[in-house]
Amino acid sequence: MKLNIAVLPGDGIGPEVIAQAVKVLKAIAMEFNHVFTFETGLVGGASIDKTGDPLPEETISICENADAVLFGAIGETKYDMDPDAEVRPEQGLLGLRKVLDLYTNIRPVIAYEDLLNKSSLKKKQIKDTNILIYRELTGGIYFGEKKLSEDGNTASDICQYTRFEIERIAHLAFKAAQSRKRKLTLVDKANVLASSRLWRKVVQELAAQYPDVKLDFLYIDNAAMELIINPRQFDVILTENMFGDILSEEASVIVGSIGLLASASIGDKYAMFEPIHGAYTKAANKGIANPIASILSAAMLLDHFELHEEADLIREGVDKSLKLHITTPDLNTKYDHITTTKVGDFIEDFINNPEETNLN
Amino acid sequence: MKLNIAVLPGDGIGPEVIAQAVKVLKAIAMEFNHVFTFETGLVGGASIDKTGDPLPEETISICENADAVLFGAIGETKYDMDPDAEVRPEQGLLGLRKVLDLYTNIRPVIAYEDLLNKSSLKKKQIKDTNILIYRELTGGIYFGEKKLSEDGNTASDICQYTRFEIERIAHLAFKAAQSRKRKLTLVDKANVLASSRLWRKVVQELAAQYPDVKLDFLYIDNAAMELIINPRQFDVILTENMFGDILSEEASVIVGSIGLLASASIGDKYAMFEPIHGAYTKAANKGIANPIASILSAAMLLDHFELHEEADLIREGVDKSLKLHITTPDLNTKYDHITTTKVGDFIEDFINNPEETNLN
Ligand SMILES: CC(C)[C@H](C(=O)O)[C@@H](O)C(=O)O
Ligand SMILES: CC(C)[C@H](C(=O)O)[C@@H](O)C(=O)O
Repeated sequence: MKLNIAVLPGDGIGPEVIAQAVKVLKAIAMEFNHVFTFETGLVGGASIDKTGDPLPEETISICENADAVLFGAIGETKYDMDPDAEVRPEQGLLGLRKVLDLYTNIRPVIAYEDLLNKSSLKKKQIKDTNILIYRELTGGIYFGEKKLSEDGNTASDICQYTRFEIERIAHLAFKAAQSRKRKLTLVDKANVLASSRLWRKVVQELAAQYPDVKLDFLYIDNAAMELIINPRQFDVILTENMFGDILSEEASVIVGSIGLLASASIGDKYAMFEPIHGAYTKAANKGIANPIASILSAAMLLDHFELHEEADLIREGVDKSLKLHITTPDLNTKYDHITTTKVGDFIEDFINNPEETNLN
Repeated sequence: MKLNIAVLPGDGIGPEVIAQAVKVLKAIAMEFNHVFTFETGLVGGASIDKTGDPLPEETISICENADAVLFGAIGETKYDMDPDAEVRPEQGLLGLRKVLDLYTNIRPVIAYEDLLNKSSLKKKQIKDTNILIYRELTGGIYFGEKKLSEDGNTASDICQYTRFEIERIAHLAFKAAQSRKRKLTLVDKANVLASSRLWRKVVQELAAQYPDVKLDFLYIDNAAMELIINPRQFDVILTENMFGDILSEEASVIVGSIGLLASASIGDKYAMFEPIHGAYTKAANKGIANPIASILSAAMLLDHFELHEEADLIREGVDKSLKLHITTPDLNTKYDHITTTKVGDFIEDFINNPEETNLN
C-alpha cells in the first residue's frame, strides 16, 4: 500500500516522540513492502516562532493532500502564562481539527498487565480495564464564540451543539460498542446544561436503532469518580469535547502513564493520529519523553487503513518493550538510562526481527 | 449562642442524612448550652411534587430569615431521564445558591488515617492528603444564558465570568492558603477558553497582594490526572463552577467514599452547608446512606460561627465512629447492619459522653 503521511511534530517533546513513530512506520513499510512517504509541516509554537502563524496555509495543504496526519504535541510555557496573547500554539491544533473536520476523537484506555503496578490505583481496581472514549472534537465550548469585553472585565465562551454534530459521532460510538461489549455510556451534565440535554435526547432517540447496545447515562462529576472507583464498568464512553478532554487525561492514571495513551481523530474525509499528552516543554530534548503514545498512534493510523497485521506487530513490540522494561523513566525503575530513542530503536528492531529481539 | 437554622432535606437520601445532622446539632446545643432552632423548608423534587415549584417563595424566606442553611441533597431519576422537563429539582439548589449569593463553595478533601485502605488509590499515594477546594458557585456555565432553538436541534449554554466574580472568591482562597501551607493552585483551561484567560489574568494580578502564597496554574485536564497521581502536591485549589464540580467529586476517591465529603457555601450575607453527594434515590429509605458528609457539614456550620470547640467535638465523634467501624455499608466490611440512624446515634452519644462511648 502507498500512504502519504503528513508529519506535524509541533512543540516541546513533540519532535522527539514523533521521530520514533516515523522510525517505526518506516520499519513496517520495509517489512511489509509498503511505500510510506512523509511530509513534514509546521504547527503550534514552533510555527509561530518561524512564521507568526500557528497553522500556516502550507501546513493545511500538506495535510489535505496526505492520506493521514501524524501529530506530535502542542503548547509552550510562555503562552500559558500570558492570558493576553492573541496568537497561541493551541490555535494550530484546534484549527486543524476544525479545518479537517475531525469530529470524532477515539482514545483507548487499556490496563496493560505488565504495568498494573505502575498505576496509582490498586491492581485489583484496574485489572482488565478496556475502555474506548469517543470524544466529540469540533464542537462545544472549544469552538463557540469567545468574547472579552472592551474594558477587559468580562469574558465568555459559548458551548453549542447541534443535533447533526451529536448524531454523527453517536452513530460511530454505538457501532464501536456493537463490536465490543455492547455497552455505551453517555457522559453529560444534563441536570444543568441545555447542550447536555440535547445530547441526552438525541442519544436516547438513536438508541432505538441499536437495540443490542445497553445505553447508560452519567453526569460528568459522577463519571470522574466512577472512572477511578470502578473503571471496568465502562466499555465505550461517549461525551462532548471538554468533558472528553478531562475524562481521557484522567483515565491515563489507569494505564500508569499519560505517555502511553494514543488517539485517533477521525472525520469523513481526513484522519489524524496523536498522543493525548501535551508538549511538556520542560522535558524536551532530554531523551526522557515516552514515545509509546506516539508509536501507538502510528498503530492506530495503520488500523485506519485496515493494516491490522502491521498495527498488531507494533503493539506486540510495545508490549515486549514494557515487559522487558525498555521504557523511559516515567515507567522505569529497573534501568534508568533508557532514552526516547532507545525505546524507538527497540521497537524498530522488534519489527525487523520479531523472533529475536531481546534486551541488548 | 442562639442560632436559627433553616433545614432543607430535599430528595432521595437527603431527609435521612439531614436528620442525623440535626440530631448531632441538638446534642451540641444541649452540651454547650446553645439555643439552636430549626425550621424546615421544601426544595427540589420533593417540593415539585407538593407545590409544582422546586424553590417556593416560602423556602427562600425561611432561608433569608435563618442564620444558616443546612441542605440535604437534590435530584430525581425521573427528571434525569427526561431532557424535555422544564421544571427540574436542580433548579431549587441552583436558585438557592443564586438568591442567597453563595459564591464560594469550600470542599475539604482529607485522607483519614483510618480509611486509607478504603480508597481505590494506593495508601502511599494518598496518605496525609489535605486539600481545600474553593469552587466558584454562582457564575460560569451553570448560570449563563441557556438556549434551545425552536426546532429543538440546537442548544447552547454561555460560560461567563466578570472580574468582580473572580476577585471576591480569589481573595478568600488566597487567605485560606495563607492560613495553611501557603500554596494556591488555579485550575482553568486558559489555553482554550476566554473566560479561563480572565481567571488566570485576574488571579495573577491579585497574587501581588499575597506575596507569601506560592501560586500555581494547571489546566483542568491535567489537574484531573494530577489529583490522582500526586494529591499531596495540593494545598488550596481555586477553580470555576463546572471544573470545581468535577474535581471535587473526583477527589472523593482519595477519601474513600463520597459519603464523607462536606461543604460550605458562603456569601457575604448567607451561608449554607451541604454534603457534596447527590440524592441517590435508589438508596433512599434503606438505612444505608452515609450521614457523615451531612454531619461534617453541620460541623462546618459551627465553625462558621466560631464554635470551633463544638465543631471539633463532632469531628472527634466522626473519627471515633470510623475507627470503631460504626459506619454504613459504603465503608464497612466488618459489621453489615449499621444503619444511617445508628451512625447518627453513635455520634450523638459520643457528644453527650465523649469519654465513655464505645461500640455497644
Ligand atoms: C492542547 C489542548 C488544546 C488539547 C485539548 O484540550 O483538546 C489537549 O489537551 C488534548 O486533549 O488534545
Ligand atoms: C445537583 C447538581 C446541580 C450539583 C452541581 O452540579 O453543582 C451537585 O453536583 C453539586 O456538586 O452540588
